[in-house]
Amino acid sequence: MGLAKANMLVVHGGGPTAVINASLQGVIEEALKYSQIDNILGARFGIEGLLKERFIDLRAQPQNIIEKLSHIPASVLGSCRKKLVGEDFSRVLDILKAYNIRYFLYNGGNDSMDTCNKISKLATASGYEMDVIGIPKTIDNDLANTDHCPGYGSAARYVVVSMMELACDIESLPIHICVVEIMGRNAGWLTAAACLAVRDNRGPHLIYLPERPLILTEFLNDVQEIYNIYGGVMVVVSEGLKDAKGQYIADAGFTDGFGHKVPGGVSQYLSNQIIQNLGIRSRNEKPGLLGRSSIAHQSQIDRMEARAAGAFGVKSALKGESGYMVSLRRISNEPYECEMGLVSLDKVANFEKTFPKEWINSRGTGIRKDFFDYCRPLLGETLPEYLGLEKVYIDKR
Amino acid sequence: MGLAKANMLVVHGGGPTAVINASLQGVIEEALKYSQIDNILGARFGIEGLLKERFIDLRAQPQNIIEKLSHIPASVLGSCRKKLVGEDFSRVLDILKAYNIRYFLYNGGNDSMDTCNKISKLATASGYEMDVIGIPKTIDNDLANTDHCPGYGSAARYVVVSMMELACDIESLPIHICVVEIMGRNAGWLTAAACLAVRDNRGPHLIYLPERPLILTEFLNDVQEIYNIYGGVMVVVSEGLKDAKGQYIADAGFTDGFGHKVPGGVSQYLSNQIIQNLGIRSRNEKPGLLGRSSIAHQSQIDRMEARAAGAFGVKSALKGESGYMVSLRRISNEPYECEMGLVSLDKVANFEKTFPKEWINSRGTGIRKDFFDYCRPLLGETLPEYLGLEKVYIDKR
Repeated sequence: MGLAKANMLVVHGGGPTAVINASLQGVIEEALKYSQIDNILGARFGIEGLLKERFIDLRAQPQNIIEKLSHIPASVLGSCRKKLVGEDFSRVLDILKAYNIRYFLYNGGNDSMDTCNKISKLATASGYEMDVIGIPKTIDNDLANTDHCPGYGSAARYVVVSMMELACDIESLPIHICVVEIMGRNAGWLTAAACLAVRDNRGPHLIYLPERPLILTEFLNDVQEIYNIYGGVMVVVSEGLKDAKGQYIADAGFTDGFGHKVPGGVSQYLSNQIIQNLGIRSRNEKPGLLGRSSIAHQSQIDRMEARAAGAFGVKSALKGESGYMVSLRRISNEPYECEMGLVSLDKVANFEKTFPKEWINSRGTGIRKDFFDYCRPLLGETLPEYLGLEKVYIDKR
Repeated sequence: MGLAKANMLVVHGGGPTAVINASLQGVIEEALKYSQIDNILGARFGIEGLLKERFIDLRAQPQNIIEKLSHIPASVLGSCRKKLVGEDFSRVLDILKAYNIRYFLYNGGNDSMDTCNKISKLATASGYEMDVIGIPKTIDNDLANTDHCPGYGSAARYVVVSMMELACDIESLPIHICVVEIMGRNAGWLTAAACLAVRDNRGPHLIYLPERPLILTEFLNDVQEIYNIYGGVMVVVSEGLKDAKGQYIADAGFTDGFGHKVPGGVSQYLSNQIIQNLGIRSRNEKPGLLGRSSIAHQSQIDRMEARAAGAFGVKSALKGESGYMVSLRRISNEPYECEMGLVSLDKVANFEKTFPKEWINSRGTGIRKDFFDYCRPLLGETLPEYLGLEKVYIDKR
């Protein structure tokens, strides 16, 4: 990078996580160390903000805001789901040049890494010197060539703790079936985390991922069987469950900004099927976006890694690396140790790492221990332990 | 009470709260102080457990379990929604006599206080000396003649913090409307708490309670108006919203154990109406039972009061009081101070204290400050503060 004083730009893409601001904190704190970086810019509302030239001055932020970023939900920069098309690309490049952006950091998931990769190649092709680094972020955990993604651990911890609490509720008033819907359209990583909530006979009793088609008659049989044993049944399903034909079990009837079909209301649909076909009371819960924005359930490990990933992205760009995404590599599981590396954006962009089918049990209703071992360290230090009473009965009449 | 050694029984009724175990802790800790109490029994699964003579020995519980009870979600005793009918009552009385229960504590909401009152009167009528005290518990906050109900503060804190976080999420990716459904069939207390999440222009932008009929055309106009200003719109609705004819906006099609109709899926219904009529993307969230079982969002004040209410119930029974519910009386608001008293079960049983209409704004889309002042102390000490970035823009091209 020949320029003495160059600017850095950070952009957020896609849905926020509980720790995307932790990555931003890592980016800002690291960038402030380098005298060769002049302005540190943040695009307001993602790539749309870039196109509108809405750049927040990140150097102008008070210290008390920067140091609290890790504990603020969602994206303080703002994000978007815009897919760049046609002339958008040349306009993006023109703007980057006009602002003398020489370090470009894109913090996002699959679609964002694709955009990031295209911008990187475009800059190279046009001879514009700019170091482009992707920083991974997704609660779906579906980015390829990284052990896991910042944002996943916290969303998974939310699922585990909430499902432990819900299991206590259902155990204490076992009058109905409860179907809970968890985010994750095509990848079951987040839904699978529910298996770490299981204690003794408490739920979740049944877990269904989008990687396996759901056969309604089998589903109803599974539910009836558990109901006959425990009364209260806790079922956790992915929002993206599909039938044998590959169609969403429940379809919201519209597509998102990237043209992906949006699933809708699978928990309510299945709950109604239970009521109608089994004649058993059933309710459905759908915490939805609450799960990705919960600060109380942030995983400490996830927060630390998200911050480190942001800092590593800056370090890499300043070393002249470009066209890579920051990748997490698990060194050991006990004690948990993970290091940062780089992976070519070509090996990430638009690949979707779905949940391994061999980690789903043979009936498709639960998760195997391999996943437990994979997921547990990502949830952070201590999980709550919700003890029950000693079941000592009095019989003195 | 003439008997030297009499037994105490505690029963849980209805849906659990985040602090019903705190009340149980208060009951046990207080009861252990009195030498005239022999056995301390807990009915397993509420009044159904009583009828089945399933009594847990609460003296046999290890100290480490008793002292952690306040931090365990749901009901460790177990609860039920059974409505006593016909011969159930004489059978209950026979069992209470057979076990020499002389102190009877019923921890529950409206329906439970009605059952409690009937059992109290039956004992009196039959000349059986037994001190009967109700301990209030409901996330709905709809018990009459008490300032508020243990369980409400924690559920309300869950709503406030979750809605603050969701508001950050929607502010950072303002591409859709989000309709959130909160529990509370006939009383809007819990849904109303969402108003305490509002910061500057962040949501919730619209709040609808069951105390006012929802007119769909007005609702859609309200949503469109906010959407035109902010893009992202956050709407919070009660699960029990009714139309002008008094019918549930969305009906699950079945009744609960007390014969009450169960509402179903109002957030999904309204979200679909937005998509179909306004052509705007919309999602819906329904944390449901997660909100009443969250320990991370327990209100410290609520936990303390729930424990104190349990202890006060025991104290009152041991003083020979009977036919009363423990009632909370607010002495002052700043600093918040509340004392325990007693109110006749006749003045509580089956009365439903709905949300005051004069605390709803004139359009029926928001809550007035009087409620804010009422609710704030119940949420406990510190609420999170989710700061945004300083919106200082760079324009240097």
